[in-house]
Amino acid sequence: MTVGPPLPADLQTPCLVVDRDVLEANLAGMASHARGLGVSLRPHAKTHKCLEIADRQLALGAVGLTVATVGEAEVFADAGCADLFIAYPLWAAGSRGRRLRALAERVSLRVGAESREGVELLASTLAGTATAVVIEIDSGHHRTGVTPEFAGEVAAAAQGGGLRVAGVFTFPGHGYGPGERERAATDEARALGAAASSLRDAGLEARVRSGGSTPTAALLDPHTLTELRPGVYAFSDAQQIELGAAGWDSVALTAAATVVSRRGRNLVLDAGSKVLGADRLPWATGYGRLLDHPEARVTALSEHHATVSFPTDGPLPDLGSVVRVVPNHVCTAVNLADELVVVADSALIDQWPVAARGRNA
Amino acid sequence: MTVGPPLPADLQTPCLVVDRDVLEANLAGMASHARGLGVSLRPHAKTHKCLEIADRQLALGAVGLTVATVGEAEVFADAGCADLFIAYPLWAAGSRGRRLRALAERVSLRVGAESREGVELLASTLAGTATAVVIEIDSGHHRTGVTPEFAGEVAAAAQGGGLRVAGVFTFPGHGYGPGERERAATDEARALGAAASSLRDAGLEARVRSGGSTPTAALLDPHTLTELRPGVYAFSDAQQIELGAAGWDSVALTAAATVVSRRGRNLVLDAGSKVLGADRLPWATGYGRLLDHPEARVTALSEHHATVSFPTDGPLPDLGSVVRVVPNHVCTAVNLADELVVVADSALIDQWPVAARGRNA
Repeated sequence: MTVGPPLPADLQTPCLVVDRDVLEANLAGMASHARGLGVSLRPHAKTHKCLEIADRQLALGAVGLTVATVGEAEVFADAGCADLFIAYPLWAAGSRGRRLRALAERVSLRVGAESREGVELLASTLAGTATAVVIEIDSGHHRTGVTPEFAGEVAAAAQGGGLRVAGVFTFPGHGYGPGERERAATDEARALGAAASSLRDAGLEARVRSGGSTPTAALLDPHTLTELRPGVYAFSDAQQIELGAAGWDSVALTAAATVVSRRGRNLVLDAGSKVLGADRLPWATGYGRLLDHPEARVTALSEHHATVSFPTDGPLPDLGSVVRVVPNHVCTAVNLADELVVVADSALIDQWPVAARGRNA
Repeated sequence: MTVGPPLPADLQTPCLVVDRDVLEANLAGMASHARGLGVSLRPHAKTHKCLEIADRQLALGAVGLTVATVGEAEVFADAGCADLFIAYPLWAAGSRGRRLRALAERVSLRVGAESREGVELLASTLAGTATAVVIEIDSGHHRTGVTPEFAGEVAAAAQGGGLRVAGVFTFPGHGYGPGERERAATDEARALGAAASSLRDAGLEARVRSGGSTPTAALLDPHTLTELRPGVYAFSDAQQIELGAAGWDSVALTAAATVVSRRGRNLVLDAGSKVLGADRLPWATGYGRLLDHPEARVTALSEHHATVSFPTDGPLPDLGSVVRVVPNHVCTAVNLADELVVVADSALIDQWPVAARGRNA
């Protein structure tokens, strides 16, 4: 199997390579899906961290961007993005609070909240700004977020502190398991619906009911959700393929790597955990996949070595040849790179800085 | 338990914090250990990637630095380090070959090799330079490297191609397992000794017999090894603690993180896999440890969330408080950060750029 055109010659491996045409198809496909359902698309920019890709998402109809940190929000605000949602229960104290307030004074800003203490800090930090608070709900991933029934109480505290409450959001991360996507999408809709009821009981309207992840995006309930926040769909990755949420033809980003060693049916590549990331969910079949060799598995990973095992009897890539590795989790792989090499039809056409790389604070 | 002085106030979490005094003690301790054994110390700079730390290692007697990539070598060469060992089986083709040759013309350079094909490329790339080749041996980690008995054949090919052969090296990575350090150190010495014999049989001298990792450094055989290449010892990490290779008082680097959410005995911190790295060897008890709460475990990790479980009945850190997380694997954590915050006695005294961050090619 060979997917798409070959790589340009003499790439400095390891490096991350974006296929511009596949990226564009992914972006257009999700935009069309959201439009068809009548749901707003607010892509999570933590996946790509690139101004060029954010621009395309907004041009294709996204209502704004989702980010995870104040630092990411600053990068996209500096580049002119006027509508940002920090989908994270920020602790808005000290210098982080001051940076958040400065952001709120120059863009349309939404921030997540899930505790009374967090809401109190936001209220004192953001007093007098138009920032909207969105209450985070746990829909089954059990990471952050309140139970749907408690949403009204946190929302009322926010309202009481002088904050504007826009609605509720959740991340159905428990959809990242084989056979779990349908259940997670159902849980997501149920939790957002119940949280909206809880706000109603507190005299508040959940105008925004925001959910969606790449694995559940195709299954979302447009009667309950008003907004979709997928990130990975831009590039796809090995997790999406192994979950059955995307096909090989959706892979827009790979790590170009050189075969540096060979021992029997095992090859070693020069892209290790400092390029691919070390993410490996319990059900993953390895540390990544090879785009042109779906039968192979990355069976071991260290900082600068990926060991790839070929189980069958077919030909092996030669020493010195360049192969394309599909990272397990593209968000962490992108965050390791300073730039993305952009190709179209086997030609290097651009290099995009990963503008928000490492902006974790 | 509280280890060392508290952190300075109002750090922008998450961030990586280096305790200068613990770092200095770690650097001096390993330098003294190597000196006492009469073995050269050539620290692996992939751990810290910082010019300031490399300077201290060299000032304390290191004979040069070890690096993993041409890009890392370029950074340290630019900063004046005159003796570099790229301990990796480089594929020296195309632009990488040209960069390698440029390096060889300005510093004292050693490069790894483990295949005839790799050696042929090095020979044509480095013809006429003083670069030395060091043959990589597999001492039991089964990643890269030839069997000791085959070392002479690869070395003879290098010599035949006009390259200078300095000796042999190995990474006893199989020492990264509970109870495996002693066996790995024994394997390391045996493999290097056998490889030296193989070179002798081919009429070559293995003047350099280089080994050593942080877990095996204390156990090395100074009759066989001439050189030691540990990296992690500068900072230590949770893997070293859980292996029994270092104590809590050796931890010189932590991720400062804020408690953003709480549910029962579980807290969520704002340092996730984009700060700590997702490394987790099968025997690790979690995704990292807390310096001041050894009973706690990082039980789940996503990009911007670390879930910490406290198993006992003691007090929990408050929402909004800052805790110190010890990454499982410090090398990958450092490679995620643009700079390290340096503290001494609870005061912020410096910020060091991670100069070779992301230089994977």
